[in-house]
Amino acid sequence: MRTGTLFGDFPRDGAEEFVEPLVARGGVRIERIVSTGQASPPGFWYDQDEDEFVVLLAGAARLRFADDRILDLKPGDWVEIPAHVRHRVEETQAEPPTVWLAVHRPAARD
Amino acid sequence: MRTGTLFGDFPRDGAEEFVEPLVARGGVRIERIVSTGQASPPGFWYDQDEDEFVVLLAGAARLRFADDRILDLKPGDWVEIPAHVRHRVEETQAEPPTVWLAVHRPAARD
Repeated sequence: MRTGTLFGDFPRDGAEEFVEPLVARGGVRIERIVSTGQASPPGFWYDQDEDEFVVLLAGAARLRFADDRILDLKPGDWVEIPAHVRHRVEETQAEPPTVWLAVHRPAARD
Repeated sequence: MRTGTLFGDFPRDGAEEFVEPLVARGGVRIERIVSTGQASPPGFWYDQDEDEFVVLLAGAARLRFADDRILDLKPGDWVEIPAHVRHRVEETQAEPPTVWLAVHRPAARD
């Protein structure tokens, strides 16, 4: 049995997002992500082979989808992003930091 | 693409916990649970065939494991409970309500 906290400390020593794998078993990866103002590089789009469920737990962020939909996320907001739905992170709140929980798993065929 | 919020309203019309399935694809079930003071019945133990990752996002709760370990959860605290690790919910905070996010998936063999 393993335990931890999503709102605990994280290293602030870099310009990168902090990504902490919490669980990686049976094809499912659960990650804690702490963003401090980072955004996807210009022109970059995520195009993932896996389904992703992601929830924003602190801070704020704006996602953009390839069909130009915008999603402004506040704490508690979640989104289920099927594999190959192209998206990018337009902005994240730096302070207080933006905390995400992401669940990646093999793309479902149903 | 589906969206929602974990901190939104929930029906308060019963004595039961509110369980909202968010995702059920590819063998993975992600649920939002809102507890308002409920606890496991006396003598009851969860003994699950699946692995469960659960995080408490609001409120407070106390879990007990069959080896008598106690886990007091505050917002942000998560626990990974492998299949067949027996546990029960000793108490949950009623007001403000206790909000959980649970990720169930087939037991890993690694």
